[in-house]
Amino acid sequence: MLDALTPDTVRDAAARIAPYVVRTPVLRREVGDAALLLKPESLQPTGAFKLRGAFSLMTTLPDDVPGVVAHSSGNHAQAVACAAARLGVRAVIVMPSDAPELKRRRTEAWGAEVVVVGPDSDERAAKAEELAEREGLVSVPPYDHALIAAGQGTAALELLEDVGALDRFYAPVSGGGLMAGCATVVHAALPDAEIVGVEPEDADDTARSLAAGERVAVPPPRTIADGLRVRRPGALTFEVVRRRVARIELVTDDELRDAMRWALDELRLVLEPSGAASLAVALREGRGRCGVLLSGGNVDPALLAEVAAARPRVASAGA
Amino acid sequence: MLDALTPDTVRDAAARIAPYVVRTPVLRREVGDAALLLKPESLQPTGAFKLRGAFSLMTTLPDDVPGVVAHSSGNHAQAVACAAARLGVRAVIVMPSDAPELKRRRTEAWGAEVVVVGPDSDERAAKAEELAEREGLVSVPPYDHALIAAGQGTAALELLEDVGALDRFYAPVSGGGLMAGCATVVHAALPDAEIVGVEPEDADDTARSLAAGERVAVPPPRTIADGLRVRRPGALTFEVVRRRVARIELVTDDELRDAMRWALDELRLVLEPSGAASLAVALREGRGRCGVLLSGGNVDPALLAEVAAARPRVASAGA
Repeated sequence: MLDALTPDTVRDAAARIAPYVVRTPVLRREVGDAALLLKPESLQPTGAFKLRGAFSLMTTLPDDVPGVVAHSSGNHAQAVACAAARLGVRAVIVMPSDAPELKRRRTEAWGAEVVVVGPDSDERAAKAEELAEREGLVSVPPYDHALIAAGQGTAALELLEDVGALDRFYAPVSGGGLMAGCATVVHAALPDAEIVGVEPEDADDTARSLAAGERVAVPPPRTIADGLRVRRPGALTFEVVRRRVARIELVTDDELRDAMRWALDELRLVLEPSGAASLAVALREGRGRCGVLLSGGNVDPALLAEVAAARPRVASAGA
Repeated sequence: MLDALTPDTVRDAAARIAPYVVRTPVLRREVGDAALLLKPESLQPTGAFKLRGAFSLMTTLPDDVPGVVAHSSGNHAQAVACAAARLGVRAVIVMPSDAPELKRRRTEAWGAEVVVVGPDSDERAAKAEELAEREGLVSVPPYDHALIAAGQGTAALELLEDVGALDRFYAPVSGGGLMAGCATVVHAALPDAEIVGVEPEDADDTARSLAAGERVAVPPPRTIADGLRVRRPGALTFEVVRRRVARIELVTDDELRDAMRWALDELRLVLEPSGAASLAVALREGRGRCGVLLSGGNVDPALLAEVAAARPRVASAGA
């Protein structure tokens, strides 16, 4: 992984995916002593950074590949389905029976074939493997792959191109692909910048793994940040994360809701809880020039309504 | 106006304001037979396109100007206050006593001095004129000025740079500065593109003025699109609008709410009713490649909560 994930492979990925992804803008807000330089990946066509990884891997496939397969209940499913549609490739997505109806419909709207299995994540993986073998489909993993992490790291590459120096960089850590890719380019360009990972309090598998010095698993998390409910870091991504990330900060569900509300009011952006995680920590402790990766905006409609009905926070000045 | 507002003056404005405004991305969505190419000006630091006009005029002021004055109850106030803060100039904003508390606080948060007068718009204008004369302040009008319209037209210039050809261009029409600036560059680059203006049903002063062949006023509009409640087109802007705009389409408040809901779900964007007006028409009748200017996102929190609680629309596929 450390050889295959370098600033150069992230730059290569950026060139491959440029025709397909949105170059998201950087939004600047002054909050206390901090200048927050926010990168809203919620503006990607599928509403999350996952699209960068999917295109990064899938643009390297040979022309005669019979198709791709992925298993996911969330943003990765839509990303693979979208990339397959744009690249003219067959996509089969294995989803759990308890996946939200909206996410299934959005995946099918991109023309992907959805195969429903039981709610267990091992069952999904087994089904995807079986399909890959039987039908010659290429598996597109959500994070634990150098090409996926390189693609996801292009978000930080764009941020650095647009803003130059940073004192800190904040991104959420789930399987670790986004952080591994981003930390690779941030560390190379700005070795003195502090790289801070963010996890929900009860999905702190990376924090615990860093403390243990090896990958450990946590019980099934219940945080509202469904995009961060991974139970154990990726094998390859964890090697990068433990070398590059200075510390992990934990956030509560209430802080996630407050950050979502702040994004509605101050950024005019809909963020999902995972997408607001790094913002929550930057609002709490940010100092100096802080790069903040807002990972996605695919929020459950009921939660969005709840957050929109909460009492607005006091306005703060912008750029 | 026709001499002072040309593709060249819009390009000049773009160069002046580039350090201060966000180059907003273009978001693409397929809807029926249309490819919507959406330009979200809600992502500007003050949440609306008005910032482009304010910086366009204020970057031409001499260094020793004692300050600026503007009268507004809405997005123009924040735009002038923000531009003054960034350019290091004193700003006095005359606001009506019935302006929303949030808008007043946001204007003050940029460091502007707010002077409150009665709710009547003539009273605001008179007070601003008095301050301009007494204190040597330069008046920054909201739309009826070639430099303001040229600045506002830079949004369309960026859109064309990013997407190339268009079959149609949709933008809201209030005082007409945004449409005059945008139509100038769209018509010059794409003489066959149909330029469509959008007004709320009861704020149809431009539609009526075009029918009458001269500027006419409408009774005080009650539409939820507070940014489009102008009663009469600008004198200079109307000259451009009547030469360049093919037709005006009217929208109901219900259509505005539906378009706001669609933007929350499909774009992950908070739009104000005015900001969703051109989207509402593009969703209704769009065909071919449609440029759609989303003018702003400063929505009243109660209305946002109402729209977020409404039944979500069926998902549609994206890019």
